[in-house]
Amino acid sequence: MLLISKIALYTVVLLLVCAQAGNTLAGGDNAAVQSPKNVILIIGDGMDDHQISIARNYLVGARGRLSLDSMAHRSVVQVLTVDNAQPEKAVYVADSANSASAIASGSVTSRARIATSAGTDKDLPTLVELASAAGFRTGVVTTASVTDATPAAFYAHTNLRYCENPSMMKDALAYGRVPVDCSQDLIVNGGLGSIAEQLLSSDLDLAFGGGQKHFAMLGEGSSKSLLVQARESGFELLDSKAQLDKQYPNKKMLGLFARSTLPVVLRGQGGRGAEAAVPKQNGVSLPEAMPCENNPKFADTPSLKLMTEAALAHLSRESQAGFFLMVESASIDKQSHLRNACGSIGEVAQLNEALDSALLFAETHENTLIIVTADHGQAAQLIPSVSLYSNPDLAIYSPGKLFRIITPEGAVMAVNYATNDFVSEEHTGVNVPLFTNGVGKNILPSMLTQPDLFGVMSDYLGLDRQ
Amino acid sequence: MLLISKIALYTVVLLLVCAQAGNTLAGGDNAAVQSPKNVILIIGDGMDDHQISIARNYLVGARGRLSLDSMAHRSVVQVLTVDNAQPEKAVYVADSANSASAIASGSVTSRARIATSAGTDKDLPTLVELASAAGFRTGVVTTASVTDATPAAFYAHTNLRYCENPSMMKDALAYGRVPVDCSQDLIVNGGLGSIAEQLLSSDLDLAFGGGQKHFAMLGEGSSKSLLVQARESGFELLDSKAQLDKQYPNKKMLGLFARSTLPVVLRGQGGRGAEAAVPKQNGVSLPEAMPCENNPKFADTPSLKLMTEAALAHLSRESQAGFFLMVESASIDKQSHLRNACGSIGEVAQLNEALDSALLFAETHENTLIIVTADHGQAAQLIPSVSLYSNPDLAIYSPGKLFRIITPEGAVMAVNYATNDFVSEEHTGVNVPLFTNGVGKNILPSMLTQPDLFGVMSDYLGLDRQ
Repeated sequence: MLLISKIALYTVVLLLVCAQAGNTLAGGDNAAVQSPKNVILIIGDGMDDHQISIARNYLVGARGRLSLDSMAHRSVVQVLTVDNAQPEKAVYVADSANSASAIASGSVTSRARIATSAGTDKDLPTLVELASAAGFRTGVVTTASVTDATPAAFYAHTNLRYCENPSMMKDALAYGRVPVDCSQDLIVNGGLGSIAEQLLSSDLDLAFGGGQKHFAMLGEGSSKSLLVQARESGFELLDSKAQLDKQYPNKKMLGLFARSTLPVVLRGQGGRGAEAAVPKQNGVSLPEAMPCENNPKFADTPSLKLMTEAALAHLSRESQAGFFLMVESASIDKQSHLRNACGSIGEVAQLNEALDSALLFAETHENTLIIVTADHGQAAQLIPSVSLYSNPDLAIYSPGKLFRIITPEGAVMAVNYATNDFVSEEHTGVNVPLFTNGVGKNILPSMLTQPDLFGVMSDYLGLDRQ
Repeated sequence: MLLISKIALYTVVLLLVCAQAGNTLAGGDNAAVQSPKNVILIIGDGMDDHQISIARNYLVGARGRLSLDSMAHRSVVQVLTVDNAQPEKAVYVADSANSASAIASGSVTSRARIATSAGTDKDLPTLVELASAAGFRTGVVTTASVTDATPAAFYAHTNLRYCENPSMMKDALAYGRVPVDCSQDLIVNGGLGSIAEQLLSSDLDLAFGGGQKHFAMLGEGSSKSLLVQARESGFELLDSKAQLDKQYPNKKMLGLFARSTLPVVLRGQGGRGAEAAVPKQNGVSLPEAMPCENNPKFADTPSLKLMTEAALAHLSRESQAGFFLMVESASIDKQSHLRNACGSIGEVAQLNEALDSALLFAETHENTLIIVTADHGQAAQLIPSVSLYSNPDLAIYSPGKLFRIITPEGAVMAVNYATNDFVSEEHTGVNVPLFTNGVGKNILPSMLTQPDLFGVMSDYLGLDRQ
């Protein structure tokens, strides 16, 4: 009996060692199932592989590596969109509203919608709502307005992304030309109100970004501004970088650090943008190459990294269950629309630095799933600085606009913008990359759809998907 | 002593089980180290994520999956190029010659070079040479000429890709306008001769593709054509699809199935290509959308799948050591240069079908590493079929050329070509995808350079890297 017992004991010990080795080899993390579970979802708006390649070349050189390049696992994400009039019909290029809605709700929808269904306009439950209901803290951090399409899709429901504040709900024009009507969402009509009003009534513990202008006005049917309403709803209001150093325990936080989108970090020399090549006798005059420079308007703007660190500290303070945090570097996309390659590069750098903070946080908070992805592709293309076909006798040049950058490693990189002839470039329908830390390595397949991504995050937090 | 022995035995058994479990969890495949090791490298020329997204939408629908989407592991590859005059200086956009040379030799070089070093023009040992020297069989299969840049980089060495045959070695013009001089590679000057001549003197067991015209002429300083020389060197010559059904044991094989590049599978309706949008009163006339159709010229052309299957059968027949096979779908790139989206889609389909054959082969040949990648990015961009900013009052359209396709799932997909105004579009500098089967899952990091990829394949075959 003694012999058998000793062998049995030995067996148990070895099997435990064995199981532990297995877990380690498989990247398992069963060791601390009791600690809070956190999801940090970092979205680079428009950050497709082209944007990353362009930014890498400038920031660390062609052979360098960004932090996101060194993540434990890499996948690719299918961006799915449908037609509003015929919701079974595929549309091959998304906008930020429908793509963020797919990630936030698990449902494919049509362009410009914020977590509502194509055709039927039904509210689609979002990660912030499901996570809050399950006891998780929730937050959104962005370099755009906190009411912009990407963050909005995580906590609000409207048929049009443009309905950011009470003045935009009907008889309004977005960009001075796009007719807007969200009248069914008016509070007086039994709706949830504008996106800004929905933020205040949401379960969000924290929202940092720009968008002061959307909260400075009176609420629908109210004599109080949305800022006053926010304070009365228990939000601590922040509007300067220095305030992010302080702690606000047991408060909800609303940080609005600019009137609209936050200023970006980098710009072209002297503010120059992309320019057209000009044919000349015996060839072509390409736009003069330039280095990027710091954007003076950025100055006292809180960086995405700083906002992310403040958000992580707030959401994790004495946390029991854990949290869901969405962090968006919004102006990779916005600067690409404006054909400003330096602008986009600086915002990829901001994302990469915020990721560094998230990775550092995860070192001491073991059940933290970090996912970095983009919502859709963007117009910018890295093309040869001198044509593959260059020849003194031929004037070969882009029919669009070129942004020619002198990189710190001393070469010239040409970024082409030629998806349209309008003031703002188009999105593209390319699949987008996804990166995850070790926690996500074995739960993320090598390819997934945006709704699949919602499923991965929901399942990780054990949410009740409806 | 008996007790200790029994416990010791038990321990050994359990540790072996434990080690086996660890291997299984880590995806180890130590079970059959004795069977031949094979590498099948499938290159989609210009097959970046845009090309794959466009092809997927057409071939299987936006929510569908290609075989390559379902591979066990996915990585991304940095495409590296340097300047010939200043080999330390980065160039951000590659051509197929320098990128294939980096994969084939492990060294970054300058555009247009075939496995020779930037600046110094030294021959760089290639995978075909190293694998042949180590006893592996070797082959190249392509839909281009067998002397085109991508296959050539695996077995030849020239300073310019254009030196495909004896007539192109000096005082020649490529495309009727690019001056060509490879005189240092002339046999009379102690060189290895043109690429076609180097193919004949190489260790290749097999080359399938197009390029009859390069072998129909007399060899340098010879009264015999290269075809005659090939036969005398032990090559079985094939020039028709039906011949691929036969077996040619103990022979080297040279299959040349077209005068130059093989015809492609698909084309635009009636042969239509991309066209310019035309502004009109109150808007813009976009090119009429069309389905793709079979290219009648393809007819009796052997498919990439058929050539791949014949190559696998030949290289694996009574194989002891194993083989290295490079398979290229070349016209994804060539059709994109010509702004023919249907053409590129058909050639992604060809690659995907050849991959199916490789995967089937690997099911019964366990140590077969399959890698699918691209050599560089290409011009095509999937943009909205109707602008994001569409408005009856605005005429918004691409400044380049549009190829608007009606997909089998009934939607319209717009492919934009706008990198230049020349007869042929540019490449791009985006990172390219890499896919591998289970054998490669644990030996390929989530990001690598093209020279790293050479290292992975060399190490897998245990080659002596010089």
